[in-house]
Amino acid sequence: MKGALLYEGKAKQVYEAKDATGKLILSYKNDATAFNGEKKSVFPGKGRLNNEIAAHIFSMLQDQGVKTHFIERLNETEQLVWQTEIIPLEVVVRNVAAGSITKRLGIEEKTVLEPPIVELFYKDDALGDPLINDEHALLVASITQAELQEIKTKALAINIHLQHIFQAIRIQLVDFKLEFGRLACGSIVLADEVSPDTCRLWDVATFEKLDKDVFRQGTGDLLTVYEEILNRLEEQK
Amino acid sequence: MKGALLYEGKAKQVYEAKDATGKLILSYKNDATAFNGEKKSVFPGKGRLNNEIAAHIFSMLQDQGVKTHFIERLNETEQLVWQTEIIPLEVVVRNVAAGSITKRLGIEEKTVLEPPIVELFYKDDALGDPLINDEHALLVASITQAELQEIKTKALAINIHLQHIFQAIRIQLVDFKLEFGRLACGSIVLADEVSPDTCRLWDVATFEKLDKDVFRQGTGDLLTVYEEILNRLEEQK
Repeated sequence: MKGALLYEGKAKQVYEAKDATGKLILSYKNDATAFNGEKKSVFPGKGRLNNEIAAHIFSMLQDQGVKTHFIERLNETEQLVWQTEIIPLEVVVRNVAAGSITKRLGIEEKTVLEPPIVELFYKDDALGDPLINDEHALLVASITQAELQEIKTKALAINIHLQHIFQAIRIQLVDFKLEFGRLACGSIVLADEVSPDTCRLWDVATFEKLDKDVFRQGTGDLLTVYEEILNRLEEQK
Repeated sequence: MKGALLYEGKAKQVYEAKDATGKLILSYKNDATAFNGEKKSVFPGKGRLNNEIAAHIFSMLQDQGVKTHFIERLNETEQLVWQTEIIPLEVVVRNVAAGSITKRLGIEEKTVLEPPIVELFYKDDALGDPLINDEHALLVASITQAELQEIKTKALAINIHLQHIFQAIRIQLVDFKLEFGRLACGSIVLADEVSPDTCRLWDVATFEKLDKDVFRQGTGDLLTVYEEILNRLEEQK
């Protein structure tokens, strides 16, 4: 069923789906990278965990009416999605200060951001995915002002749904990164993945980090915490 | 007439104005700095040039109805201004790509930006004056959404006036940095300075750089090009 490899990213490969026009297969890899690829490692089983976690979350978002590229999980490490043209923006939503914003603005980790803050990064590895403002986005991302507003509004709505999903499994959603893609019809939908690779997830009781920060900071075992997220999501079902 | 030194910046000192409540004296220094203070030099006469240039430009802006902190030039290196509480934002307007935006977005120097782009930087030396977005500004700069919009609208209006001022002396206004301050009554006015320290100014015929880039890049004599700007402004009078 898998056709030609179209694109290889840091954590996923994208294949054509044979005999399925307009669909793609996302294949989750076992690689973990951080700091724009400077830190790398392989965790056998990570691809399965993220594929399953992302499939759970996209299904739950779709149940709430959020349009996404997700169609179905095919096997342990692969999922079928609608083909989109990815908009070259990383849309970050922050409910609590952690990571780069604490250094950029000199604010303390754990500062509650109310209302949540939306940031745009220009998806360009050679430039180091720089933070940009709205006007830069209109210049480089081939989108209109109305589409940019739509993307931000969607990101904030998705934040509400994700907060509910994670609250139910005793996790605080600190921040997360989204990517959006344009379907053949022109509609903009949530694409890429939502997983512990792309979210900061803290246990509500212990503040334990249950996301890729354990790898970035070398403070825990990536597979153990990703497994914990998957187990809690499966208990919910 | 000069009272206590209240603040010393990289290019100016700020003094109380004795017997003149609510007014300050700006004293322009001969120092030039670049790259967040990493490159430094002293140019005897620079303080006079920038004081005179800034006085000319603020007077012309006020003639066009732009509210500023400027009252009058007192002597070669000093000017009297209204006391304001400086809003900790550097507001950059770009008509043509040059400097940091070319590196951040990977676009070529001289790319025309139409419409002009407004950028906000958080005025904080320790953090390296980072680029921020609107939501960051509301978080760190103690301003409201309406005030932020007012500042951006003023910056774009000032851009039109400055473009006319410089076009008349055969100079292309590439980009510039503004700072705004809050008067005792709460009104927000243009503050700080407008000079070849804070603008990129290219000769329309030769593209010769007539601003601080000659110091940043070591490509020319700072005093000669600042003197050229002052001479052209004085011819206009």
